Amino acid sequence: MAICTIAIVVIHGNSPLLVPGSPLFLPNGTHVLNKLVSFLRTQYLQYGFREVLTPTIYKKSLWEISGHWQNYKDDMYEVTGRGASGEAGGEVGEDESYGLKPMNCPGHCLLFKSQNHSYRDMPVRYADFSPLHRNEVSGSLTGLTRVRRFHQDDGHIFSRPQQIKSEITSALGFVDMAMKTFGLGPYRLVLSTRPEKDYIGTLEMWDNAETQLREALDSTGREWALNEGDGAFYGPKIDIQLQDKAGKYHQLSTIQLDMNLPQRFELEYQVAEGEPDYNPATPGVATPVMIHRAIFGSLERFLALLIEQHGGHWPFWLSPRQAIILTVNQDDAVVRQAQEAAAKFAGFRALLNDGTAESPRPLSSVDSTFLVDVDTSAQTLSKKIQRAKQMKYNLIFILGSRDLADGGITVDVTGQMQSKTDKDAQILQALIKARLGDDALQNPRAVKLSVDEVHPLLIELEKNFV
Amino acid sequence: MAICTIAIVVIHGNSPLLVPGSPLFLPNGTHVLNKLVSFLRTQYLQYGFREVLTPTIYKKSLWEISGHWQNYKDDMYEVTGRGASGEAGGEVGEDESYGLKPMNCPGHCLLFKSQNHSYRDMPVRYADFSPLHRNEVSGSLTGLTRVRRFHQDDGHIFSRPQQIKSEITSALGFVDMAMKTFGLGPYRLVLSTRPEKDYIGTLEMWDNAETQLREALDSTGREWALNEGDGAFYGPKIDIQLQDKAGKYHQLSTIQLDMNLPQRFELEYQVAEGEPDYNPATPGVATPVMIHRAIFGSLERFLALLIEQHGGHWPFWLSPRQAIILTVNQDDAVVRQAQEAAAKFAGFRALLNDGTAESPRPLSSVDSTFLVDVDTSAQTLSKKIQRAKQMKYNLIFILGSRDLADGGITVDVTGQMQSKTDKDAQILQALIKARLGDDALQNPRAVKLSVDEVHPLLIELEKNFV
Repeated sequence: MAICTIAIVVIHGNSPLLVPGSPLFLPNGTHVLNKLVSFLRTQYLQYGFREVLTPTIYKKSLWEISGHWQNYKDDMYEVTGRGASGEAGGEVGEDESYGLKPMNCPGHCLLFKSQNHSYRDMPVRYADFSPLHRNEVSGSLTGLTRVRRFHQDDGHIFSRPQQIKSEITSALGFVDMAMKTFGLGPYRLVLSTRPEKDYIGTLEMWDNAETQLREALDSTGREWALNEGDGAFYGPKIDIQLQDKAGKYHQLSTIQLDMNLPQRFELEYQVAEGEPDYNPATPGVATPVMIHRAIFGSLERFLALLIEQHGGHWPFWLSPRQAIILTVNQDDAVVRQAQEAAAKFAGFRALLNDGTAESPRPLSSVDSTFLVDVDTSAQTLSKKIQRAKQMKYNLIFILGSRDLADGGITVDVTGQMQSKTDKDAQILQALIKARLGDDALQNPRAVKLSVDEVHPLLIELEKNFV
Repeated sequence: MAICTIAIVVIHGNSPLLVPGSPLFLPNGTHVLNKLVSFLRTQYLQYGFREVLTPTIYKKSLWEISGHWQNYKDDMYEVTGRGASGEAGGEVGEDESYGLKPMNCPGHCLLFKSQNHSYRDMPVRYADFSPLHRNEVSGSLTGLTRVRRFHQDDGHIFSRPQQIKSEITSALGFVDMAMKTFGLGPYRLVLSTRPEKDYIGTLEMWDNAETQLREALDSTGREWALNEGDGAFYGPKIDIQLQDKAGKYHQLSTIQLDMNLPQRFELEYQVAEGEPDYNPATPGVATPVMIHRAIFGSLERFLALLIEQHGGHWPFWLSPRQAIILTVNQDDAVVRQAQEAAAKFAGFRALLNDGTAESPRPLSSVDSTFLVDVDTSAQTLSKKIQRAKQMKYNLIFILGSRDLADGGITVDVTGQMQSKTDKDAQILQALIKARLGDDALQNPRAVKLSVDEVHPLLIELEKNFV
C-alpha cells in the first residue's frame, strides 16, 4: 500500500488480541470512510433511497427462512448469550442461537413486510451501511480487499416486475457517476443469465427480467459482455468490474435480481385490478421483485482501490489533511494571525487544550467545515514546507509578518498537486483566476490571497470533487 | 410514545423472527438518528475528538485482558465461527471464541497502543458510534430506553494526569451546549468518589483526580451533588441526569475516570524529564489516565427522550418531513412549477421513477439539502392541508395559478408550530421579517415569498436549531 505518512488502518493478523480480517481504522482512515458514506447518503436523496438501521444479530429461525442457515453455514458466525440459563424466559431453547449477519437482505425483507405498500408507492428502496461479518477462510484474507468484517453500501429495491428496467438503468447511471467522481475506470459490465436447470420461477418471469436488463444495458451506450447461464438460481445479475492500473479486474458493484427471498418472506404489495401486474390468482396483492445492489460494493475494498489509485495523495474533498498554515517566524502577532486564519478557513475554532476557551456555539449540518492545521514551530520555513509536503497536505499556506498589514496570506497552489495535469490543482487555479484574474497565477507557488476569501474558495474546490 | 403518524421504529419483541431489544429503524427514524450522529461529528471538530472505526467482535483473550470476560460474563454474547473445523489454521482452540462487544474501550486501548505518543500530543481523544450489544435480562427491556443492541456517542480520552480538569470542564461544556441545542433540561450533576476499600491506585492519585473533578464542577457555576464513596473501584465519575416533563430523572451522560484499563493494557506515552508527570521509576514513559465519556449516552434512549420532549413535532433541523408544497389545482403548469420549486427548496432533484431523467450531477458535502415533498393530488386544498398537518410537516407551502406569473409561493409560517411560543416559528418569522419587513407577516398563515429565496431561508432556519 502506498500510504506511509497517513496511517489509516491497523491490521495485526497475528496479534493474539485482534481478530484476523477485522481491521481497526485510525482517525484518518475513518475520516475517508465517513466521507465515502456521506457522499453516498447525499446521492441517495437524488436516487430515492432511504437509509434504514437494522440489527447485527438475528435469531436462527430468521436465517432458516432466508436459507442462509442451511446454505451459508460455513461463512456465518453463531452467537449465543453467555448468561442464558433460564433467566431469559421465552428465549430458552433453539432461539438462543443467533446468526451474526453476513448480509442485510433478510432484515430489509422484515422492514418491508412490517408496512403496507400500495403499487403507487413502489418501488421501495432501502439503503444500509451496517457492519457485516463473513467467516472467510484465513488463507483468503488480503489487506482491505478481503476481510471478515466490512461494510457495504448495501441497497435493496422492492419493485414491480415492470419497473426492473428503470431501476437497473438508474443503478447503472449511479455507478457511472460514482466512477467519474472518484476518477476510477475503465470498468466493464457483465450480464449473467438463467442457469439451465434448478432455477426458481417461470420461464416467462426470467425472459421478462432478462429483457429488461438487456435493454437497460443497451441504454448505457457502453459495451457489455454476456455470461450465459451463469446467473444465480434465483435471478439474473449484472457485475461491474473495475480495471486497476495494472490491468487487473476487481469485482466492485453488483446488481442482482432476486425472485426467491420475496417468496420465502411472503412479501406483497397491493395492486388494483387492471394494472399489468394484477394477478387474478392472488386478487389485490402481488409479489415484488427484489433487487440487491451496491455501488462501491465493500467500502473497505473500495478504500483499498482508492489508496492505490491516488498513491496516498487524496483529492482535496476526501483528504484528512486538506490544508496547513505555516508561519514564517514565531512572532506573537504572526502566530495569532495564523490561528485566526485557520479558524476562518476551517469554518470553526477548535477548543484549546487548556480548557480556557469559551464553550463554542454548536455547528450546524449546513455549516461547511474543513480540516486545517497550523505549524507555528521554531523550525525554518523550508523545513516546515518539506514536512508539510511529506505529510501530503493538499494546500500549503504561508503567513509572515508582511501579511499582517493587509490581512493576506500566500498559498502554494501546486501544493501536493505535483503534476501539472492534476485535476485538483487545475480546478483551484481556475477558481483563483476567475476571482483575481490571470495575473494572480504568475507564481503558482506563491499566490497572494486575502484571508477572508479562502473559505468560500475551499467550498468551491470541494464542490468540484476530482 | 407520542409518534403515530411518523413511524420510525419496528420492535416486535414477541415475533419469532426478531431479537428482543434489537430494534429495526424505518427511514424516518434512521433519518433522525443520523442527524444526531452528524450533529455530534460536527461538534467533535471543535472539541478535538477524532472518530475511529473498530471491530464488532474480539477474541476472548482481549476480553480477558480488559476483565470483561470474567466480570461482565452475563451481559455478553459469545461468538463462534460456524464453519471452524481445523481449516481455519491458527485460530483453532481457545481463540475460536469471540465476544460481541458491549463497550468500545478495549478497542480504543488497542488503537492507542498501536501508535507512539509524545506528551506534547496528549490528550488523545477517540470517538466511536459502533453498535454495541448487552444481553440484558428480558424483563428489563423497555421501548428504546433499554435495549440489547444500541449505539453510544462513545468517547475515550487518554490524558496526562494534570489534564483531567480541563478535559472534564470541556466535557461538561459540551453536555451543556447539547442540552441547550436540543431544548432539554433541567439536568443535575452528581460526583461519585473513591469507595472506602478495594480501589486501585494510590490515595494521592485519587485525591488529585477528585480535586480536579470538583474544580471542574465548580467552574460550571451549577449546583452539583456528592455521592461519597460511590465511585467505581477504578476511578471517580460524574453522572449527568436529565429530568423529563414528569419530573423523572434519566441517566444520560457519564464522565468516568479510569486508572485500571491503562494498566491492564500497559498503555504509555513518552514524557520528558522535568515535566510534572515525569516518573523516575519509569524513565521516559508515563501511564495515561483514561476518561470514558458520552454526551447523549445511548442514542436510542436519547431518541426516546426527544420523542417525548417534542411529542412528535420534530424541530425543523431534525425533522424527516421538513416541508411540503401543496398545489391548489392540478393544472400542468402549476404541477410543473411545484416540482421545480421542490427541487429548488431541497437543493436537489430526485430522479423520476420511470428512469427517464438524466443522471444527476453528484451532490457534494458542502451542498445544503432539505427534505421537501409535493402533494399534487386531486384532493381539495383543505384536505391536503389537513393531511399535511396530520403528517406533521414543519412548513406547508401552497402554490396556485396566481403564483405562476410572479414566481411566488405562499407559506404558512405557523405550520406545525402551533403555539405562538414555538421557537422554530419565532425564528422563521424573525428571518422573514429581516428579509421582507414587518408587513410580510400580517397574515402568518399565508406569507408570500419568492420561490428563489426559500432555500437560503431554510439554511438560516436550520442553522438556528431549536
